[in-house]
Amino acid sequence: MAAEASNKQITLKNYVTGFPKESDLEVKITTTRLKVPEATPNAILVKNLYLSCDPYMRNRMSKLEGSYIDSFIVGSPIIGLGVAKVIDSTNPEFKKDDLFWGFTGWEEYSLITDTQSLFKIQHTEVPLSYYTGILGMPGMTAYAGFYEICSPKKGEKVFISAAAGAVGQLVGQFAKLLGCYVVGSAGSREKVDLLKNKFGFDEAFNYKEEEEDLNAALKRYFPEGIDIYFENVGGKMLEAVLLNMRLHGRIAVCGMISEYNLEKPPGVQNLFNLISKRIRMEGFAVFDYYHLYTKFLEMILPHIKEGKVDYVEDIAEGLENGPAALVGLFSGRNVGKQLVVVAHE
Amino acid sequence: MAAEASNKQITLKNYVTGFPKESDLEVKITTTRLKVPEATPNAILVKNLYLSCDPYMRNRMSKLEGSYIDSFIVGSPIIGLGVAKVIDSTNPEFKKDDLFWGFTGWEEYSLITDTQSLFKIQHTEVPLSYYTGILGMPGMTAYAGFYEICSPKKGEKVFISAAAGAVGQLVGQFAKLLGCYVVGSAGSREKVDLLKNKFGFDEAFNYKEEEEDLNAALKRYFPEGIDIYFENVGGKMLEAVLLNMRLHGRIAVCGMISEYNLEKPPGVQNLFNLISKRIRMEGFAVFDYYHLYTKFLEMILPHIKEGKVDYVEDIAEGLENGPAALVGLFSGRNVGKQLVVVAHE
Repeated sequence: MAAEASNKQITLKNYVTGFPKESDLEVKITTTRLKVPEATPNAILVKNLYLSCDPYMRNRMSKLEGSYIDSFIVGSPIIGLGVAKVIDSTNPEFKKDDLFWGFTGWEEYSLITDTQSLFKIQHTEVPLSYYTGILGMPGMTAYAGFYEICSPKKGEKVFISAAAGAVGQLVGQFAKLLGCYVVGSAGSREKVDLLKNKFGFDEAFNYKEEEEDLNAALKRYFPEGIDIYFENVGGKMLEAVLLNMRLHGRIAVCGMISEYNLEKPPGVQNLFNLISKRIRMEGFAVFDYYHLYTKFLEMILPHIKEGKVDYVEDIAEGLENGPAALVGLFSGRNVGKQLVVVAHE
Repeated sequence: MAAEASNKQITLKNYVTGFPKESDLEVKITTTRLKVPEATPNAILVKNLYLSCDPYMRNRMSKLEGSYIDSFIVGSPIIGLGVAKVIDSTNPEFKKDDLFWGFTGWEEYSLITDTQSLFKIQHTEVPLSYYTGILGMPGMTAYAGFYEICSPKKGEKVFISAAAGAVGQLVGQFAKLLGCYVVGSAGSREKVDLLKNKFGFDEAFNYKEEEEDLNAALKRYFPEGIDIYFENVGGKMLEAVLLNMRLHGRIAVCGMISEYNLEKPPGVQNLFNLISKRIRMEGFAVFDYYHLYTKFLEMILPHIKEGKVDYVEDIAEGLENGPAALVGLFSGRNVGKQLVVVAHE
């Protein structure tokens, strides 16, 4: 008879419109048998260790129809990326104590029946939490977005919005390693300070508290214009960037977080610049690039060990603090990669 | 002593805001000596035959600052692409009676001192006027935009706006030659009829008079979505297209004529689809592709001679009818490529 354990869960209370609130999520206590149920082949029962808070999750909190992604189920634990440890397995690919990262539930223990998209963790000489960030989806996003979409060249001028976030901080460091001039925008002095003094950006500015006129700010930092824009926010920032792009510039469209909580986001002006400056603007999704994950690890692990790349995490301790951490993404409360510790091992 | 000739000109009366009117242009009669002035090396004196009316010219009618293109000069003949014949030359590359296409003045006779961007006409077994359209800039635009920017594949679903225009009619025929499913939009029944019955589009619709809901129209013609959008208009059409693009779709941004006469065009919504559908949207300018012109002629000339590609021109006879022809572009009055005949030979 397998042990039963208390299983704390974060569930969605109701579909969200506008900005999500902590109260849209609920902490529930259930119990779980710490064993894959009988007659459930190819499944694993896992203990969740670290959960990732990512902007795309906002979308799944809405009632979606015909979207590229499914809505969360009201009353059930929300789903996200995380790092977990196998407790029991009927899957020949996984055995007890294996570590992996991939989609799991926001709860202490999860039963996972679709294991296809999980990544086994082989390198444990780095913090395990890194697999929610620099070594996980955000790291791969920065890598694919910068190297595969931006076609960067040494000496080019690179601008990154939401630059202190999980992805932006890495894009900036990749661009510096290549020999680019790099400027980031962020929403607080603390973040701007991080960009300049920890991540080695050439310049950074506080779009929220110190720059009324984004066009003027960009003109100041890029008197000759922007070759590459790594887009995380959309809206007014994109409008200002379009005015400041150089001929044959590239815009990698990774996210548009400024729009996710608006029922009807205002339209984006200045798109005519796409023609007059012959700009390539390309949206991408990290899962199209996971075949490069091994190559990515070979590049990034030495950089981490040699201290050539830094990574800042914003860590919420305890699953019960998950809702505040997740919701905080949309007001920019987090400094660096936001994650939630469910258990340290 | 060289002959003097009367030289009718079309000049810009004042910088334009909003929709241009015929009265923004003026017919002037001057006289010109039919000889390159003394001590003017490398110049040609030309007789203009056909002048091209192109949407980009609207931009030059405004007072521009820091644009990618210069404003026309008030009081002087406006400049455009045209077909002309050399009358006198001090340029070793050109001799009397040579024909070429390139930038010239809207007047009967022009002195051209910068001959660098002129294309000599070698093939005269086709109508000379074609060098304002299918064999000139619009033809190259369709060719470069479709083959170089859209990355088209057989069987893909292609949508073209302003499809009966100088560029759109060719893009659609190129796409059909490749084996694509092709739908075009245009602003009158006559144009829709041309698209379906002359250019062989699979479907066409009248966005102006018969389709209130562009999104619904696109859903009807593209139940599985659009792979390639050849963008000539911008605004509401682009918004509707973004909702109907398929995964990994491509948008070649050639023009945004719906916005050229608006002081402050409304912004474009639905850009988040760039991410969710991983769309590449790329602006381009034909002059980046003129090195392919010879290759283009080798492809298109046989198609014309064998009747595999058709081209419809809207011909205004007489320079004095140029202002109405040019202004008519912006209300969609023209059917096919709009040009002005100054002289037939």
